[in-house]
Amino acid sequence: MKCELISVGTEILLGDIVNTNAQYLARRLADNGISVMFQHTVGDNEQRLLDTLDLAFEKSDMVITTGGLGPTPDDLTKEVCAGYFGIPLVEDKKSLSKIKDYFKSKKLTMPSSNRKQALMPKDSIILENKNGTAPGCIMEKDGKIIIVLPGPPGEMKPMFEDGVVPYIKKFSDGVIKSHNIRTFGIGESAMAQKVGDLLDMSNPTVAPYAKSAEALLRVTAKAGSEEEAEALLKPVVEEIQNRLDGYVYGIDSESIEEATVELLKQKGLIVATAESCTAGLVSKRLTDISGSSAVFTCGVTAYANEIKEKVLGVRKEHLQKYGAVSEVVAAEMAIGAVRLSGADAAVSVTGIAGPLSDSTEKPVGLVYLALSDGKKVKVTELHLRQSGDSCREYNRTASASNAINLLRLFALSYPEMPGGSTDAEEYISNF
Amino acid sequence: MKCELISVGTEILLGDIVNTNAQYLARRLADNGISVMFQHTVGDNEQRLLDTLDLAFEKSDMVITTGGLGPTPDDLTKEVCAGYFGIPLVEDKKSLSKIKDYFKSKKLTMPSSNRKQALMPKDSIILENKNGTAPGCIMEKDGKIIIVLPGPPGEMKPMFEDGVVPYIKKFSDGVIKSHNIRTFGIGESAMAQKVGDLLDMSNPTVAPYAKSAEALLRVTAKAGSEEEAEALLKPVVEEIQNRLDGYVYGIDSESIEEATVELLKQKGLIVATAESCTAGLVSKRLTDISGSSAVFTCGVTAYANEIKEKVLGVRKEHLQKYGAVSEVVAAEMAIGAVRLSGADAAVSVTGIAGPLSDSTEKPVGLVYLALSDGKKVKVTELHLRQSGDSCREYNRTASASNAINLLRLFALSYPEMPGGSTDAEEYISNF
Repeated sequence: MKCELISVGTEILLGDIVNTNAQYLARRLADNGISVMFQHTVGDNEQRLLDTLDLAFEKSDMVITTGGLGPTPDDLTKEVCAGYFGIPLVEDKKSLSKIKDYFKSKKLTMPSSNRKQALMPKDSIILENKNGTAPGCIMEKDGKIIIVLPGPPGEMKPMFEDGVVPYIKKFSDGVIKSHNIRTFGIGESAMAQKVGDLLDMSNPTVAPYAKSAEALLRVTAKAGSEEEAEALLKPVVEEIQNRLDGYVYGIDSESIEEATVELLKQKGLIVATAESCTAGLVSKRLTDISGSSAVFTCGVTAYANEIKEKVLGVRKEHLQKYGAVSEVVAAEMAIGAVRLSGADAAVSVTGIAGPLSDSTEKPVGLVYLALSDGKKVKVTELHLRQSGDSCREYNRTASASNAINLLRLFALSYPEMPGGSTDAEEYISNF
Repeated sequence: MKCELISVGTEILLGDIVNTNAQYLARRLADNGISVMFQHTVGDNEQRLLDTLDLAFEKSDMVITTGGLGPTPDDLTKEVCAGYFGIPLVEDKKSLSKIKDYFKSKKLTMPSSNRKQALMPKDSIILENKNGTAPGCIMEKDGKIIIVLPGPPGEMKPMFEDGVVPYIKKFSDGVIKSHNIRTFGIGESAMAQKVGDLLDMSNPTVAPYAKSAEALLRVTAKAGSEEEAEALLKPVVEEIQNRLDGYVYGIDSESIEEATVELLKQKGLIVATAESCTAGLVSKRLTDISGSSAVFTCGVTAYANEIKEKVLGVRKEHLQKYGAVSEVVAAEMAIGAVRLSGADAAVSVTGIAGPLSDSTEKPVGLVYLALSDGKKVKVTELHLRQSGDSCREYNRTASASNAINLLRLFALSYPEMPGGSTDAEEYISNF
């Protein structure tokens, strides 16, 4: 079955918020064997929503809407969709009492405007909202289906998983299965050269995607069952892993931080961070992963030089002679973080994220990373973006990804330090 | 003039990446008086892209595509759009030499596949790409316009600003101007009750939006000139500010962190952070703001209890008796961060982000924040999400926002501490 997504909301159309719902639904529908060929966004406008429904049903049999179920008068998705099918709205007692309970549990009085959220299309399947006040619903008419979901992702996702996934099973066109082969340190063009011939395959298909400082290959197979799909995928995934040996950090890992935390857990290692220009982004990303408390102990964001000295033990004369953005300061920050925390290793980041440089003449985008286990240290120099609107964000994100990758390489080669590391004391005293 | 956006890319259609380009373009087009009524997403598929172009030109005269300009064979947006207008592609020498220079500057050899990125629609306006290899272009035919932009946001945004904004000026339907009134601490429903009558206005319009822990009102006016639009906006913005007094943290601030950094700068204050469950997210968000080094000095991510003791001076007996997630530990973390850093104030966060609780019986979503200037301290208790797929992310984001808001309130009431604060030593010794 073919499905189209309609995201409803002036806040998306005008660009106030990013549409993350479309991404989530597209992925989960594909997982469940439903093909999404088109996604649309319209404002909270009756006529334009009707036009878009018309359009979607020209090519597809199922439409999923998100957004426009709120209590305010401009929220009209449910009303318009029911009207499109000619179905009247009736007050649903169960939904109304749930909305009342929701406000009671928050010790609030239900505003009268929320009452309209309990008006539901007659004979529709009502989808309970466990995280908010607006129920969703599924309407069917002459072989066409509209599934109406709320806009806030925290409400939409559980409703989709609990109410929609079981419903759509019967429409699955077989199974679409993908594996994402995630790489670090190889560009999209270079990767295409190594595996370019595989991009012409049809089942499975292989497609390359680049994102900041990373590149991934998505291998996708379509088959009658999950087992058949896996049998198609396996040899291709293995072939790619062989060709990209050394660059692959994970298959189906969500991110480099997930792969790194997982590897640190397996090896029983504990790490720490010392950050200047990324200012907590490395520790934030490591701890995005649930259960990371087993592998992460301490992070120091040493934004000011005196904190680098006082908390991390960076030598004042090095800060003065070489500046905060220097090899030796990166090294001392990492060594200092190990000593402060007692972790097995620490990674440090010091650089110029931009858009402006510091008082030295160093270029924006110059970043030093160091990895230390307290005894040895390895420093890496990065040259990232020198200018551009998003250079600060890009430079911080890419620096953090590289720092996390150093921790991954540490775990991989443990108990040895990764190649290129030198004696910590010697390194520092040679400056 | 009406414009539609077409995002091209299987990675968006399948949900591998979030479509942030559509948000950016929608907002910037509105700023420039171009109405975006529909946004669409299609995969890298010739026929479906042609269908979508057909569809878009039924209702609009301008289409902007993003994505599908890469060097790999599945990138076909430029080819399909030129074909749709019947315009042949010819090699553009200037673009080719720029692509070669790009690789040279990165000390790489240009892969042969990149050569196709220099094939441009004949007589089109070529848009230089200063941040990547794929140029964009503007094609016109019989009063219809297609603007082709690359997919990576770091390439698309500067190209749009430098090449497209000057071009579209002549098509502006007058000016659309918005002000975003950003609030913290008031829910969407409660806000709608205070300003509900304003939501029915037509020019300017007033629309409420909720996002995690925040709510905003967008006031939008359409007029012949910027001055006329501002004259329409001013009285409405002032009326709303009066009605929501105490909740408004900024007009047109990008975020609570931007408003906070700005206020700290104005007051000449320096702050520090001590984070447990947010693990660097507060310091990361404060330092997202360019120039934040003037107001932020030090952050400690004390994930493990021994780091709370050793680096921040939290008393071992308090950790043992009350646990890491407790009022007194939050207070000691904030006080410790001030003493460590010498900052004017510090904020601390300790809580259970979930999805799993810690070894105590405390519920997921319980978070303590503390604000201290070293002499006084004020502790806040939050009850956030107890479960759900995204509870960890939500709880961390909302905790960080609340912590940043405490720093904002500190700056607002400086040199007084915000109401409800007590003597630091007394507070701790009473436990």
